[in-house]
Amino acid sequence: MNRDYKRLETAMRDNAERTEEALTRLCACEDDDIGLIFDAERYSLLGGGKRVRPFIVNQVCRMLGGSAEQSMPLACAVEMIHCYSLIHDDLPCMDDDDVRRGKPSNHKAFGYANALLAGDALLTNAFLTVSEAQTLSAEKKAEAVRLIAKGAGDCGMIGGQVMDLIGETEELEIEKLLRLHTLKTGALIKCCARLGCLAAGYYPNSDEAKKLSLYAEKIGVAFLVVDDVLDEIADEKELGKNVGSDAGHNKTTFLTHYTVNEAMQYARELTESAVAAIADMNDNGLLVDLAYYLLDRKN
Amino acid sequence: MNRDYKRLETAMRDNAERTEEALTRLCACEDDDIGLIFDAERYSLLGGGKRVRPFIVNQVCRMLGGSAEQSMPLACAVEMIHCYSLIHDDLPCMDDDDVRRGKPSNHKAFGYANALLAGDALLTNAFLTVSEAQTLSAEKKAEAVRLIAKGAGDCGMIGGQVMDLIGETEELEIEKLLRLHTLKTGALIKCCARLGCLAAGYYPNSDEAKKLSLYAEKIGVAFLVVDDVLDEIADEKELGKNVGSDAGHNKTTFLTHYTVNEAMQYARELTESAVAAIADMNDNGLLVDLAYYLLDRKN
Repeated sequence: MNRDYKRLETAMRDNAERTEEALTRLCACEDDDIGLIFDAERYSLLGGGKRVRPFIVNQVCRMLGGSAEQSMPLACAVEMIHCYSLIHDDLPCMDDDDVRRGKPSNHKAFGYANALLAGDALLTNAFLTVSEAQTLSAEKKAEAVRLIAKGAGDCGMIGGQVMDLIGETEELEIEKLLRLHTLKTGALIKCCARLGCLAAGYYPNSDEAKKLSLYAEKIGVAFLVVDDVLDEIADEKELGKNVGSDAGHNKTTFLTHYTVNEAMQYARELTESAVAAIADMNDNGLLVDLAYYLLDRKN
Repeated sequence: MNRDYKRLETAMRDNAERTEEALTRLCACEDDDIGLIFDAERYSLLGGGKRVRPFIVNQVCRMLGGSAEQSMPLACAVEMIHCYSLIHDDLPCMDDDDVRRGKPSNHKAFGYANALLAGDALLTNAFLTVSEAQTLSAEKKAEAVRLIAKGAGDCGMIGGQVMDLIGETEELEIEKLLRLHTLKTGALIKCCARLGCLAAGYYPNSDEAKKLSLYAEKIGVAFLVVDDVLDEIADEKELGKNVGSDAGHNKTTFLTHYTVNEAMQYARELTESAVAAIADMNDNGLLVDLAYYLLDRKN
């Protein structure tokens, strides 16, 4: 491919910095009695990650004529949801991962109970953040809460996590595995696109929101397929988490059904259909780049 | 005391039935792939409890001239929050309780991972329920989300849970213990009163909401003091959970600082100041009864 991702990387770095600033403000606390829970929240929320989800929220909003300031509270809310899901996913009763983003996972740093509560708190704070957003009307706040709760809840991300658990004890057919991924990662990434649309004034039933939702859903599934491949082949240090942890759990992954080459071919097709969904939209350049960037990534 | 609680008990039973119906509708699912998570949610959400929190939401709304239909979505949302907190509280990494409401706790019935996710899902669904409430304007929805997130989050219930964990390893002074209880149980019960006010059109800065918030905060702390006493003295079968489980954890409770009689005297004073807070309000009868009922309860 040899695409040039310089412009995208600059935009993502800039977005990550501003997201970090906003998250830092949102997760401040000067109360000694309860400082510990904020420490645990900040440990996982701040200082890490490419902030792909906030980037999608903010970039979609910008692309539709809004500003990243308008959508930033929604971008932060989604990142809180994402971080809570990582904390709970890493717990011993779930994936039992000791390392996340190259440092000890939350429960390794703060203990099991505090990590559980830090995840609960981040999930709760996502909704608080939406409800207190000064850039959004009450109508947009209520719709954003609905979109996030749908994307993150039992018919979205959590539904996918439950299917994932089932996939640890029985082999899932490819259709089920695809549905699992569509729910587990696709639902929240789709939510990001919808939130960006909403901030710019486009509700989910608009043509713009439909196209961007389809784009996001496709790159969400492609993202997980690439994750499965990277988990199989990547170097532990580069990935920042233990390699082969999925296989170690006997978890059904795309590699249960496909070779690495077949899986990457499938991820490429998903990426191309994502790009096709927004091909006729103005200012789509960075989102097109993002789709390929997520496909080509090495960690 | 020998108060007559017949009218209250009838009203609570009626409210519990209608809450159960509403919760049943809100937690329905016909999707086999993800049915397991709904089973786990329903297991803890339905068929149990006196529904004290929904009763406060609905009764406050009624008392201020609204109807229970208006406030029911908010009542259900708070009950979902309450149930999620019980599921997570019972987990081995927290209180490690095997029994809840006289039956196996969620993780005993569904396994640790599913219980974790069921709690996450109920927390998420609380906000979904608010956002989809047909009886509320967008303004009221956004404010309700804010109130619930504040009451349930790191500066509310979760903050209290963290202090509770700290209290397992070091003895908390009485002021800290009081703050713990104010956060852990008081914050959500206060939230119930505010939600009932909101549904009836009274925002938190209104006189009505302030009086009812104070009432709720006081009965919330009294509730926990009585809980500590009951945990110490009650018969295991009557309480529906293992007796002495707090003492077994070396957890700081009111009984660390007070005798049973002193603690009950304190709970009585809290109850009387709760009643005093709403003494000049119309139609306060059932809420006054409720305050004494919670004080006099045996389980």
